[in-house]
Amino acid sequence: MNIENVQLLPSERVDDLLTHQLHIIQSEEVFSFSMDAVLLARFAGIPPKGRILDMCTGNGVIPMLLSTRTKASIEGIEIQPRLADMARRSVAMNDLQNQIEIREGDLRELYKETGHGIYDAITVNPPYMPLNGSDLKLNPHQAIARHEINCTLEEVIQASVRLVRPGGKVSMVHKPQRLGEIISLMRNYKLEPKRIRFVHPRAHLEANMVLIEAMRDGKPEVRLLPPIIVYVQGTQYSDEMMNIYFGSKEGEV
Amino acid sequence: MNIENVQLLPSERVDDLLTHQLHIIQSEEVFSFSMDAVLLARFAGIPPKGRILDMCTGNGVIPMLLSTRTKASIEGIEIQPRLADMARRSVAMNDLQNQIEIREGDLRELYKETGHGIYDAITVNPPYMPLNGSDLKLNPHQAIARHEINCTLEEVIQASVRLVRPGGKVSMVHKPQRLGEIISLMRNYKLEPKRIRFVHPRAHLEANMVLIEAMRDGKPEVRLLPPIIVYVQGTQYSDEMMNIYFGSKEGEV
Repeated sequence: MNIENVQLLPSERVDDLLTHQLHIIQSEEVFSFSMDAVLLARFAGIPPKGRILDMCTGNGVIPMLLSTRTKASIEGIEIQPRLADMARRSVAMNDLQNQIEIREGDLRELYKETGHGIYDAITVNPPYMPLNGSDLKLNPHQAIARHEINCTLEEVIQASVRLVRPGGKVSMVHKPQRLGEIISLMRNYKLEPKRIRFVHPRAHLEANMVLIEAMRDGKPEVRLLPPIIVYVQGTQYSDEMMNIYFGSKEGEV
Repeated sequence: MNIENVQLLPSERVDDLLTHQLHIIQSEEVFSFSMDAVLLARFAGIPPKGRILDMCTGNGVIPMLLSTRTKASIEGIEIQPRLADMARRSVAMNDLQNQIEIREGDLRELYKETGHGIYDAITVNPPYMPLNGSDLKLNPHQAIARHEINCTLEEVIQASVRLVRPGGKVSMVHKPQRLGEIISLMRNYKLEPKRIRFVHPRAHLEANMVLIEAMRDGKPEVRLLPPIIVYVQGTQYSDEMMNIYFGSKEGEV
């Protein structure tokens, strides 16, 4: 780890990913990851080797967490140059340049460069909010990460189907409110949901996150996994969350 | 209640519905209700008055349980004459003829008789299994109740959209394995999922039942309610299940 030599821009800091000695560059003003990314990185079905793509990769948190679970080569694509640069510096800081490549570009156009169906698995933590609900208090970096400014849900799904091989998996984290759209769009594009898991902040509260793994050209049969309950008492994490954050990162949850 | 005067056919018995002094005629050989029906009758969004239809009503368990929650007139439609007769005798046994009418007929054809969009709410506990998975050990009554012999999932959804008014609700219980098909079919027919609730036998096990409420012509936004966990220890029901079975039947869960 080259944490001593890392070049930080104003507002940036280095955070501990709390597993495998990984660290990451973050910035409250530009981008910092949330629990959603950690859960997706643990949930996603990924191959032990091959080629994985993380779309909307932000500061590269998902590729770095995935690297603890696989020998596959991992690419992250990010449309914002500021974030792609931040992700590249984090990859270098963790000596992961041999496994992780950060691409700066538009996920909608990537197939023109790579060709169709070349990834074994794709992960994506896309912007959650439709453009019409735009929050003017956000700066442009935050707005692009949270709102469908540069790509809609349908464009994300369409791009993933173009890029994943038949039988390959696409895993997404999103807001449960949009589950109807997500499932019907996926199925329209021949991505069949296979595993779904809801995340509830507490056992008696509605879900505020959904994890979905779909298979290109899969048969229609989906498993509804046990719910993830985040907190058991006050701000005490459940055993499951402790395992996700601090346990072995082998295997998917 | 006219339990003394009820005429029972061979294999039939009278069971206590354990709420509001309701009783029901059942038969292990022909039809007996399961937990699925009880949960749907408690989950479904129904109006305090107006007109409700229960499709695939079987022995009429759902209309009878719904009668404890609403003053609306309730119709049940059942394609098997043997079951429609059983349901009618149960309705009479409970003195509910003024509120519940059992129709014998094909739900796919009902709109020709009633016209379009005349119900305020529809409930349905349809056959769960596609025809290709047919279990030859079942007798014809059981097979029709469990397999898509007389109507497919798509036909059930299509019929419900024809029969419910715009803005009216359609509530269904089904197997989570078919969630992908259910959601995309519903949305193809302009039924928008609005509330979804998964039922897990135990907190650490996959869901084995899903409750979905959709609205005709609704906006795409769905709430993922807290999971229902059936058993907490051994065969001890959770507080939630105790409330569903034995609690007040006002309001939806």
